[in-house]
Amino acid sequence: MTSPTTRVACHTSAPRVGDLAGNCDRSVQAVRDAAAAGADLVVLPELVTSGYVFASVEEAAGVAIGPDHDVFTRWAQAAGDAVVVGGFCERGPDGELFNSAAVVDRTGVRAVYRKVHLWDEEKRFFVAGDALPPVLDTGFGRLAPLVCYDLEFPELTRHVALAGAEVLAVPTNWPLVPRPDGERPPEVVIAMATARVNRVVVVCCDRTGTERGQRWTAGTTVVGADGWPVAADDREGLLVADVDVAAARDKRLTARAHLVGDRRTDLY
Amino acid sequence: MTSPTTRVACHTSAPRVGDLAGNCDRSVQAVRDAAAAGADLVVLPELVTSGYVFASVEEAAGVAIGPDHDVFTRWAQAAGDAVVVGGFCERGPDGELFNSAAVVDRTGVRAVYRKVHLWDEEKRFFVAGDALPPVLDTGFGRLAPLVCYDLEFPELTRHVALAGAEVLAVPTNWPLVPRPDGERPPEVVIAMATARVNRVVVVCCDRTGTERGQRWTAGTTVVGADGWPVAADDREGLLVADVDVAAARDKRLTARAHLVGDRRTDLY
Repeated sequence: MTSPTTRVACHTSAPRVGDLAGNCDRSVQAVRDAAAAGADLVVLPELVTSGYVFASVEEAAGVAIGPDHDVFTRWAQAAGDAVVVGGFCERGPDGELFNSAAVVDRTGVRAVYRKVHLWDEEKRFFVAGDALPPVLDTGFGRLAPLVCYDLEFPELTRHVALAGAEVLAVPTNWPLVPRPDGERPPEVVIAMATARVNRVVVVCCDRTGTERGQRWTAGTTVVGADGWPVAADDREGLLVADVDVAAARDKRLTARAHLVGDRRTDLY
Repeated sequence: MTSPTTRVACHTSAPRVGDLAGNCDRSVQAVRDAAAAGADLVVLPELVTSGYVFASVEEAAGVAIGPDHDVFTRWAQAAGDAVVVGGFCERGPDGELFNSAAVVDRTGVRAVYRKVHLWDEEKRFFVAGDALPPVLDTGFGRLAPLVCYDLEFPELTRHVALAGAEVLAVPTNWPLVPRPDGERPPEVVIAMATARVNRVVVVCCDRTGTERGQRWTAGTTVVGADGWPVAADDREGLLVADVDVAAARDKRLTARAHLVGDRRTDLY
């Protein structure tokens, strides 16, 4: 079931806040394009169906959808053999809103993960999830969906790596922050270290554009299990990269060093 | 007690394996030079008194010292107002060996920390420490000593940050590993992410040279609490940099985001 390389596709886009139908259409086209490019895994940005900078809770609620929404059926139909991970504004059973990521394959919705670390103003709109990310078996390896700020909590990333995740798929909307000339976005540095210390592949799909004055980083980057970026692109469109997921399965650093086994679980 | 900037000095050197007296003399000179440069904190490499690539346990034992060794008195005398963190091969009460870091100021040895994560062949020579790093109050802020591979375990770095450490002083001997052209050493990427996600200053003092065929990275780097390197130098000698330790005291990322407060301690 496992091929030596896994083709990952990230579609950097600029969702339009409030334009549910248009965003959905564009996300389906992105999945179709990624599948045509031979992707095993397609990652879309956070809140790709809804946009991010909501003016009010009512506006967010107006574009909130459930896992039974048509867009996920369309992702499933467009996915071919790929697994799709993309963010959406989820309406829960009692009308509460979550910042969620759906994991979809040709069979339909495999899982919905609700972001547990809400960033800044998201706390006005969303309820934080109450469960850590699932780890899902796929044709290319074990996958965990995260959302954006989650990546900055080593407690969470270590947890999913120890739970067997080999690939972290991370829909993001990274607000642009200052950085020194020539440096990668700080979130990418964190993704690189996360990959390295856990020996996992980290696939970050960011958004682009400016939304109600908020500039975005467009930091889409695929990081290999050795911690080095395989590909990055700050332009709107599809980024395709081949990664070695099998490398994530062997946690030995040397004959006598092991990044899991060397943990001092007697001390922490 | 706290000045707006803290002057950090790292002395990258090439300790000679087995040459205890010579290594000690050179380390004292390094402390003296750092104090003359106005350092508040001096960091020396891992195992600076002994060298690293031991041929046998007997050879390591031959250069093992206790915290009462003269070299620490000499560091204290040379330190002026600075705090010194440097690695040494420690002989324990029953003759067992530890890969330790001493924290020394003008009053003498403040603490000895025994590396808890032993790297690779170190397991042949050393017993792992049985306590996480202490967090020490100093004139410039709260300091935790780590040793090398410890930095690659987010459990440990998060622990010391939550315990109040504002500066991580990390004597290292980083074996040279392959990296893509133009990239920093992977350990530095990890240090940068550690600094960023915990908002702590990370001061890594590495060694240089080649020792019994082992090439070293010479990756000495001072990382600010924002995660960006303030200074780095791969040459033998003193690297002096001014850092803002006060920045490590405020863990707010935005008005509504807080890197400690946003942790989901109900889930992990």
